[in-house]
Amino acid sequence: MTANLQPPNTPLDFTALSSYLGSVGSWMDHALTERLPIGDPEKYLYSPAMDYPSRGGKRFRPALMLLAASLAGGDPARALPTATALELFQNFALVHDDIEDESHLRRGKPALHRIHGIPLAINVGDFLFNRVYEVLLENRVLLGESQAMDILEQFTEVVRHTLEGQAFDIGWVHSDHFPTREEYEKMIRLKTGWYSGRGPCQMGALIGGGSADLIAPLGNFGEKLGIGFQIRDDLLNLTADSAEQAPGANEGGYGKEHGGDIAEGKRTLILIELLTRISSADADRVKAIVLMPPQVTLEKDIQWVIDLAENTGALNAAQDRCRELGQEARQELAGLPDSPQKNLFTELTDFLVEERNF
Amino acid sequence: MTANLQPPNTPLDFTALSSYLGSVGSWMDHALTERLPIGDPEKYLYSPAMDYPSRGGKRFRPALMLLAASLAGGDPARALPTATALELFQNFALVHDDIEDESHLRRGKPALHRIHGIPLAINVGDFLFNRVYEVLLENRVLLGESQAMDILEQFTEVVRHTLEGQAFDIGWVHSDHFPTREEYEKMIRLKTGWYSGRGPCQMGALIGGGSADLIAPLGNFGEKLGIGFQIRDDLLNLTADSAEQAPGANEGGYGKEHGGDIAEGKRTLILIELLTRISSADADRVKAIVLMPPQVTLEKDIQWVIDLAENTGALNAAQDRCRELGQEARQELAGLPDSPQKNLFTELTDFLVEERNF
Repeated sequence: MTANLQPPNTPLDFTALSSYLGSVGSWMDHALTERLPIGDPEKYLYSPAMDYPSRGGKRFRPALMLLAASLAGGDPARALPTATALELFQNFALVHDDIEDESHLRRGKPALHRIHGIPLAINVGDFLFNRVYEVLLENRVLLGESQAMDILEQFTEVVRHTLEGQAFDIGWVHSDHFPTREEYEKMIRLKTGWYSGRGPCQMGALIGGGSADLIAPLGNFGEKLGIGFQIRDDLLNLTADSAEQAPGANEGGYGKEHGGDIAEGKRTLILIELLTRISSADADRVKAIVLMPPQVTLEKDIQWVIDLAENTGALNAAQDRCRELGQEARQELAGLPDSPQKNLFTELTDFLVEERNF
Repeated sequence: MTANLQPPNTPLDFTALSSYLGSVGSWMDHALTERLPIGDPEKYLYSPAMDYPSRGGKRFRPALMLLAASLAGGDPARALPTATALELFQNFALVHDDIEDESHLRRGKPALHRIHGIPLAINVGDFLFNRVYEVLLENRVLLGESQAMDILEQFTEVVRHTLEGQAFDIGWVHSDHFPTREEYEKMIRLKTGWYSGRGPCQMGALIGGGSADLIAPLGNFGEKLGIGFQIRDDLLNLTADSAEQAPGANEGGYGKEHGGDIAEGKRTLILIELLTRISSADADRVKAIVLMPPQVTLEKDIQWVIDLAENTGALNAAQDRCRELGQEARQELAGLPDSPQKNLFTELTDFLVEERNF
């Protein structure tokens, strides 16, 4: 730990942080309603673009970013446009993901392409994606041109890695490839680690004025936290009813059917752990169930796979990896000076380590 | 015309301009191959992302931008990243368009989603779209932070309007709405006018150091040229074999079947002009043919619509509008000082006015 790692001199104000999250909502509304003169493509574009954001969402990533800015000693308000852009990116990703995964539901309602058709939904996603960069350009005045461009550069990198990870994830579903643990970890680090953890923490700390000594471990912390939350979400998809979900996960299980990941053919860590633990005859049957088109997959086959995962210890192995990631994440924070912000970051890992539900 | 509108002091070097277009190709290759360490998602992402760019393309928009930079008295080389970003945007738009329009062919080969499936193709498009902004960030060093951000702001505006226009275009195809001439002109100005004309001309002139007195008319010129080319392309879709195409059009007719726009249900100006010229019984039949799913539309029905458009003067009316746009575009250039660059811009309108094929 170097001398310039001081605890943030602003005390953590939970009420303020929470009201900032409300501000992210206002910014979202602003970003999605401004420049809407009468006659603009309301029906085909602006109105469907508001749909997913209006369905709510935990805003876990913006919270992580605002907290990181605060930990670095900065004013979280300076991170508001970037936090909003992150939430817009999340909504864009959900719109395209739902088409790519042929999902029926999102947050308990029909997926956007089920309402408007695939062509309009693709275009709505593209529009939300472009809005991400429009909102990031608002940093020009707030942060100055130089830091605004630094953030833009980091953001495009986060997006690129997310799309790289997505390519593996979809590519595997549409092929007969079953990845190794190493391939899985690489995919999930790209697809989830960057935009659900590393990105929010690094960019938040940068905006908060943090030094490289702070930004690096906080980024590593975020990556491990993000991956851990995703594995926990994958576990919940098999073990819990659809109302439960880990914060910060990709919302794969949110409003989806129990065991939906198996029907969709997702290559989760649980599946990979399972395949290493069973006879080759059982492995062939599991693979056949996973590769089946979702609409013909039988509930009893899904339950058989879940029971097998339970009985062979595959679920436990994924839970262990989750705990391990929580501990690794905590270790990244070890060198940082104590502060209420650090305590809050540490508490986030409790989801992974103690399996607390809060 | 104000005193600061001087002819560009650099003579127009056709060979140099042409070699700059070659440079756009190199930049594209660079943008699509850099940061590709072994093990990256080559098969599912990087390789399909190279597919459309490697099929060629006229690079009309980059040429327009480089020429605008030169007309403004600047070095076209300074516009290379932005011109590359424009061409990447065009390739992104084609990938998503082809899914949205359920196209079979692109540049004579199967459309990307016919090769890799819709999920991977959506993700490849997203990746190309993000690359647009990555490449635009290369302007930071080349143009300085302030102009780089000006270009980013203009670019996001161009993209937004394109997606707004696309929303109308797809929205109409998937509904029973037949737009008025005014609605059509609004749609095409948004969908095509910005990214195929106004954007390249305005951004090129800005990078070339042009004053507002130059940028404004050149932008108007570009918009009219872009719309004119698109109408001409729509005419070619009905009257020519699929090898022919206007430069700068949306490539709707490129490698597509004769009359494909009718089968796809596109609301072209020709269709709108036709509907104002026929009995309500014929109009009902035309609408029924247009609204039919493309795969069941009969060749003889398409030919009947084309013959009707020919015989009622609807084709001529669209051709007249095309000529008119060409003349309006020329008038925008009238106040600019004479130069070889201006002559070249004027010659581009010959496509629309004289229907020269070159």
